[in-house]
Amino acid sequence: VLWSPEKITGPTALVLMGHGGGLHKKTPAMADRARTMVAAHGFHVAAIDAPGHGERPRTAEDDRARTEMRVPGRFKEVSVRYMASIARRAVPEWQATIDALTRLPELGAGAPVGFGGGISMGTAIGVPLTAADSRVRAAVFGGGLFVYDDLIAAARRVTVPVHFLLPWNDEHAGREEALALFDAFASGEKTLHANPGDHRTIRWSGLDENFLARHLN
Amino acid sequence: VLWSPEKITGPTALVLMGHGGGLHKKTPAMADRARTMVAAHGFHVAAIDAPGHGERPRTAEDDRARTEMRVPGRFKEVSVRYMASIARRAVPEWQATIDALTRLPELGAGAPVGFGGGISMGTAIGVPLTAADSRVRAAVFGGGLFVYDDLIAAARRVTVPVHFLLPWNDEHAGREEALALFDAFASGEKTLHANPGDHRTIRWSGLDENFLARHLN
Repeated sequence: VLWSPEKITGPTALVLMGHGGGLHKKTPAMADRARTMVAAHGFHVAAIDAPGHGERPRTAEDDRARTEMRVPGRFKEVSVRYMASIARRAVPEWQATIDALTRLPELGAGAPVGFGGGISMGTAIGVPLTAADSRVRAAVFGGGLFVYDDLIAAARRVTVPVHFLLPWNDEHAGREEALALFDAFASGEKTLHANPGDHRTIRWSGLDENFLARHLN
Repeated sequence: VLWSPEKITGPTALVLMGHGGGLHKKTPAMADRARTMVAAHGFHVAAIDAPGHGERPRTAEDDRARTEMRVPGRFKEVSVRYMASIARRAVPEWQATIDALTRLPELGAGAPVGFGGGISMGTAIGVPLTAADSRVRAAVFGGGLFVYDDLIAAARRVTVPVHFLLPWNDEHAGREEALALFDAFASGEKTLHANPGDHRTIRWSGLDENFLARHLN
């Protein structure tokens, strides 16, 4: 999905949105955020279905992971393995998406790219993408996920400005893990923003709404 | 010191500023923040010297603490005891200051009061003040200090919106202690904002500049 301004008034930026686990590229809350960003900043905002999500077929591995996650006591272990697998597949897909979209005349090859979030699975994919692709110049990440060694290693290769959103009371994913992930970013400019709530019920307040505009424009 | 708008255009709020340890009520960085707040939001902003600071006499206890803090290995223990002592003395002084300032016609007895910061000693004083005085309706606190049991206990009595600023790499004061202090606030709305740096070198970015205005106006 590509959300674009009605009128193109000058050079603009491309913002990538990552949906959460089990959701898809047209998830209403994410679509609302995308429309708000287009209206407020004139960005082009893109979302794609993650591997095994939305309109895409599931592999045998996807089906197995979704079944095994429900086995009592195995959620974390299976979830970490599955997130890492999804991220490995999704990074080259996002890079191909950037290739295609920056061939559009309204964007162009030099268009700055931002990763607009979100938390949870969006971060599992967005961190290695941002580490791997220098076209991504600023990124919004967040907690609400289990943090694993490959994700920390990718965060250590991220040097662009990072805005990191932490649901302070997440039931599933440990606060300490999320803080370790924030700590790992090599970015000279990074902000941790936490509000009470878990990653499904969180009500964000006082967000830095101009973070991407400041770094992409 | 009281910084006030040149023109009073309607009902406004009183914001209290706390200076850091060893500093005083006219510390340039704090005075700059005060002037910015007056200009941006029309607040009246007040600062007072903390006990034993600025133009105020030092007690024998103040002198002893300042000497003992320099004894190798005793900094943390003496600092915690001294902060607690300063806070006990400063809370009634701030309450008397609110009493006096809300008798001014441009403020009035019902004027909303905010604690505008800062981190470090400002927080050691501001947290028990906010817990003790229901006129304080929103508060900016922060890390950069050792956290002790009485401070955590006061935080558990704070229910107003809190914006908490954490220098992520403070050399002196532990990050875990600051996170425990943030965790302790009973406020339904609270935000943790962290940027890299220690409490003297920190460069804040993407702050929620409208936090006090949103809650006091």
